[in-house]
Amino acid sequence: MVDIKVIKAPAPGTMQIIRQRSGARWSEDFRPAAVGLVQGKLIEMVVASDIAEKTAGVTVTDVRGSCPQNMVMLAIAGETAEVMECLQKIRDGGDGTHDCR
Amino acid sequence: MVDIKVIKAPAPGTMQIIRQRSGARWSEDFRPAAVGLVQGKLIEMVVASDIAEKTAGVTVTDVRGSCPQNMVMLAIAGETAEVMECLQKIRDGGDGTHDCR
Amino acid sequence: MVDIKVIKAPAPGTMQIIRQRSGARWSEDFRPAAVGLVQGKLIEMVVASDIAEKTAGVTVTDVRGSCPQNMVMLAIAGETAEVMECLQKIRDGGDGTHDCR
Amino acid sequence: MVDIKVIKAPAPGTMQIIRQRSGARWSEDFRPAAVGLVQGKLIEMVVASDIAEKTAGVTVTDVRGSCPQNMVMLAIAGETAEVMECLQKIRDGGDGTHDCR
Amino acid sequence: MVDIKVIKAPAPGTMQIIRQRSGARWSEDFRPAAVGLVQGKLIEMVVASDIAEKTAGVTVTDVRGSCPQNMVMLAIAGETAEVMECLQKIRDGGDGTHDCR
Amino acid sequence: MVDIKVIKAPAPGTMQIIRQRSGARWSEDFRPAAVGLVQGKLIEMVVASDIAEKTAGVTVTDVRGSCPQNMVMLAIAGETAEVMECLQKIRDGGDGTHDCR
Repeated sequence: MVDIKVIKAPAPGTMQIIRQRSGARWSEDFRPAAVGLVQGKLIEMVVASDIAEKTAGVTVTDVRGSCPQNMVMLAIAGETAEVMECLQKIRDGGDGTHDCR
Repeated sequence: MVDIKVIKAPAPGTMQIIRQRSGARWSEDFRPAAVGLVQGKLIEMVVASDIAEKTAGVTVTDVRGSCPQNMVMLAIAGETAEVMECLQKIRDGGDGTHDCR
Repeated sequence: MVDIKVIKAPAPGTMQIIRQRSGARWSEDFRPAAVGLVQGKLIEMVVASDIAEKTAGVTVTDVRGSCPQNMVMLAIAGETAEVMECLQKIRDGGDGTHDCR
Repeated sequence: MVDIKVIKAPAPGTMQIIRQRSGARWSEDFRPAAVGLVQGKLIEMVVASDIAEKTAGVTVTDVRGSCPQNMVMLAIAGETAEVMECLQKIRDGGDGTHDCR
Repeated sequence: MVDIKVIKAPAPGTMQIIRQRSGARWSEDFRPAAVGLVQGKLIEMVVASDIAEKTAGVTVTDVRGSCPQNMVMLAIAGETAEVMECLQKIRDGGDGTHDCR
Repeated sequence: MVDIKVIKAPAPGTMQIIRQRSGARWSEDFRPAAVGLVQGKLIEMVVASDIAEKTAGVTVTDVRGSCPQNMVMLAIAGETAEVMECLQKIRDGGDGTHDCR
């Protein structure tokens, strides 16, 4: 199972931790209302990232580990309602079509 | 057990995550109908890769981890029906001849 | 679950271990009354860091592993009462709004 | 326990995955009838490698992980019957003399 | 739980293994009567290190893993009685004030 | 628990695998009657190494992982009887004085 958390009104240092580990794709003055975090196996995070990218109103970035190719966490920023809806979709597995069966 | 997922109509960012971690062997405008993902131990992914390569109509790439030699996931692209059939074969262990006993 | 410990009146060598692994953001003569330590998954430490940053009277740093981007532990310094209160908040999950449900 | 698999008539891409990660000790046109794969702890793979080296008719290589010294899998190539016999010996622990007791 | 061991009258090669991995902070002719070893999570080793540093008569060093910042084990040298007393304190969790509750 | 194996009359390729990963401290023509292998946590291998060094008639080397400081296995070479006796001592925990209690 993936771990999912949401941070409402993230503190500047929290945004910096995410920004530093995501290749600086978020600008320094980007202060979203909420940030959702998703951690799990690579295969789960690729699926979660696809769900997030198809959700309106949120911005996704990957948070890297010890190497640039190493994705350890997803960060999803936006208005609180949109982030919560997106995280709910990820928890539900999107439109239910991601399992192979 | 391997983890197996399928993403139908993958978003551009999803294709980019896969492409960035697979040595750019897929072109930037490659937009398959579906992408199957397989994650497991190296030995399981080598077997899965062999099954996929012997399946008509799909294209396989390895998704790497922190180092070029480090294979953490397989991505299998193609038409939805072919990808689904390939993933089913991988789930079934191919033609049943991969186990040593 | 995260692991949480507190060190009261940390010895000079203890402060040095933390300082050496945190990018030297704490000066060599920084001798706080107490240091709280938090270790867990990255997603848990980002949430803990956000809680700590919103707690008055404490200073937070990340303790890194084998690479600069690799965060393995949080260190939270300050007066004993403030550090204990902060660690309690982290144990309780902050204001209870970090879970996505 | 070690994981053991056999791939009969390995596809060209399968041979390439193995070759790329084994220090190119197998030539590009090496197409064995079968390839056995063994994955486990280093201590188990050293024992398996010794058993394979003492088996007539098979060729052994180590498949490396993120670093040259890091052995993550053994690949054993040859005629199908010889490879199957070798994998059976590895499963049985060789001549039973490898345990210390 | 941390793992704790003691080596009485450590052999020269044992001291060399520890010295080589601890940044050469112990001189080559340092031959303590006993060496205590502590292995566990980073958070546990920082607490253990603080306890050891506050114990009279022992010398502490960290034993590193694949990178300088990566602490995998503590080594505590001194007279046998002092080392045993220090390891007992670490096992007991110091003065009982390290848990946050 | 540590894993312990013994290889009698190790094949040349087996000696090469060990030699390549142990900093070339064993010469290329070193062909011992038996090689004992010990894999476990670092703390267990340091204790095992100390026991082996205090055993007459055997030669010890560490087998490294992805980095020089990273010890993943011990190799103990010598006459079969001496190696078996040494491995038995390691299994028994030496002279029983390594536990802290």
